[in-house]
Amino acid sequence: MQNDQNKKISMKEIAVLCGVSVATVSRAINNTGRISDETKRHVLEIIDQYDYSANMAAKSLRESRSKSIGVIVPDISNEFFSKITLKIETFFYEKGYSVFICNSANDPEKEKAYFKSLDSKLVDGILFISGQKNISKDLISRNIPFVCIDRYPYHELNLPNVTCDGIMGSYIGTELLIKKGCKRILTIRSNTGNYSQHKRLKGYENALKDYSIPLDDNLLFSLKGPQSSYIEAENIIDRCLEKNIDFDAIFAFSDRAAYGALTSLKKNNIDIPGKVKLVGFDDSLYSRLASPTITTIRQDTDLLANLSSQLLYDVMTGTKELTNEQIVIPVTLIERETT
Amino acid sequence: MQNDQNKKISMKEIAVLCGVSVATVSRAINNTGRISDETKRHVLEIIDQYDYSANMAAKSLRESRSKSIGVIVPDISNEFFSKITLKIETFFYEKGYSVFICNSANDPEKEKAYFKSLDSKLVDGILFISGQKNISKDLISRNIPFVCIDRYPYHELNLPNVTCDGIMGSYIGTELLIKKGCKRILTIRSNTGNYSQHKRLKGYENALKDYSIPLDDNLLFSLKGPQSSYIEAENIIDRCLEKNIDFDAIFAFSDRAAYGALTSLKKNNIDIPGKVKLVGFDDSLYSRLASPTITTIRQDTDLLANLSSQLLYDVMTGTKELTNEQIVIPVTLIERETT
Repeated sequence: MQNDQNKKISMKEIAVLCGVSVATVSRAINNTGRISDETKRHVLEIIDQYDYSANMAAKSLRESRSKSIGVIVPDISNEFFSKITLKIETFFYEKGYSVFICNSANDPEKEKAYFKSLDSKLVDGILFISGQKNISKDLISRNIPFVCIDRYPYHELNLPNVTCDGIMGSYIGTELLIKKGCKRILTIRSNTGNYSQHKRLKGYENALKDYSIPLDDNLLFSLKGPQSSYIEAENIIDRCLEKNIDFDAIFAFSDRAAYGALTSLKKNNIDIPGKVKLVGFDDSLYSRLASPTITTIRQDTDLLANLSSQLLYDVMTGTKELTNEQIVIPVTLIERETT
Repeated sequence: MQNDQNKKISMKEIAVLCGVSVATVSRAINNTGRISDETKRHVLEIIDQYDYSANMAAKSLRESRSKSIGVIVPDISNEFFSKITLKIETFFYEKGYSVFICNSANDPEKEKAYFKSLDSKLVDGILFISGQKNISKDLISRNIPFVCIDRYPYHELNLPNVTCDGIMGSYIGTELLIKKGCKRILTIRSNTGNYSQHKRLKGYENALKDYSIPLDDNLLFSLKGPQSSYIEAENIIDRCLEKNIDFDAIFAFSDRAAYGALTSLKKNNIDIPGKVKLVGFDDSLYSRLASPTITTIRQDTDLLANLSSQLLYDVMTGTKELTNEQIVIPVTLIERETT
């Protein structure tokens, strides 16, 4: 018999070909109910032969379960997010799920649109890395399990969240600089107003306080553009040097910004780490490939991805109730040539 | 009246609230048929008020059109692919589409699974960057428009494809090295067996031939692991130096591999570009951040993404027939410190 690839064979046709009932075909496909191994094998062989692919859209409408999840990320070109996303993908793919990645570009409207879009596609769960400080609860129409990663803007909601210890991260970075004798530590943070940048500033402030160093607002800088902009960070340090602003260290709350700062210091022949010390955040390519290599704070992206994936999976499969569990993962100081 | 966010309001309920028929509500939502501007505005206001979100899964089943597309990429953590993907996302989002990104990890089984998964979700089109040399046509069950990017493994099929001129890219890279006096040009390619790596080898061979330099198989190296492995490239050059293999240049068919080669050369105190010259491929962070900066071949990812997006969009919207159009984009040589 000719196998016409363009024609989609129905469950009924498969049943006829196998000489069994439609219910039996369904049991074989879904691996449920009473069915002998032999019958199951026979049905699956016929299905394989005819390349029957269940119309998952129709199936998910009936079951509201589609063996797929969505991941919303602010920027897949940012190494930190792409690492997390790839790990999530591996976790769920191994469990038989398709993973649909949506890039929100840190845009609140896009985040909302993608949330709705994933929701309407009836995915079984969503992992959400938001770029915002606050998002209202009207995002969610269906009662869909979702877990927040890295940022936690849902103060209105009671949702589970897995995050790296950003406060501790910038605390230990600042502490290192203080212990190496720095007193005038300039900071560069991104101005997307998200929660993780907020936490990093907090850790810096805490460390200064503990070591009785006064906080100087003139040393706090923000990037206006996308958080990726290292050229903007370079310009900030260029201007600080022009204006003779007094600083003996730079703590950039991202490696990209640290790289920009380093470029300015090198261009202006500033001795690093002799005259100015430098710390970044993320342990991304920017800090590893730079010359000199940049001291930074490593976040354990593998652990972050695996814990949040497991949490979502447990909720989706009913092993666990959806609570407002808050998991905080420790961070590590990576000392390199700039300190 | 209380607006209960958890309850999804039906089209019938909206019709009752507006005092119009269900057909009129449908016309307002879908912007079709005869309906006065005033009625339309009124219906849309009520919908907005009640946060009615049409169940897109049900809708797409009826219409087989879901205002969404899928993008299958081998590795979103690779800058080349993430740049293309982000540009595609922007293109389609601006046209009102959701873009679902799937990471195939260069795994043929995963590519197939994601293709089927996107297909069953009834996306309107697929942009496909394959990691394979060959894929059979039984991938496609539905008659869904799809456009191949960068790699073109579908010799059985007649599909449109947009690609950068890889043969020309490695030709001009090799030619630069020859013109600078190199005669023993070692190559490192990734061994994923994909079409783009194959083309790069071809361009290298063509240049040698045109300049009457014999091809020496002992200078051709392949990475066994994932194409990202720069440590493997470093090890290859380490071994070549140990064995005193004679070479005066390295052409690595990816910047990551070039970075690995550079690390080995620096470690072994080889004068760059004095004794050995180095060229990479991609113009990624690896070549830009390295010290010395690495000469490389830039592929125009923006143009690549925009042309393939436009092509898919035109086919999806019926402006254009699906043909086997082959678009090849020129590449640019970026000279830096290693040549």
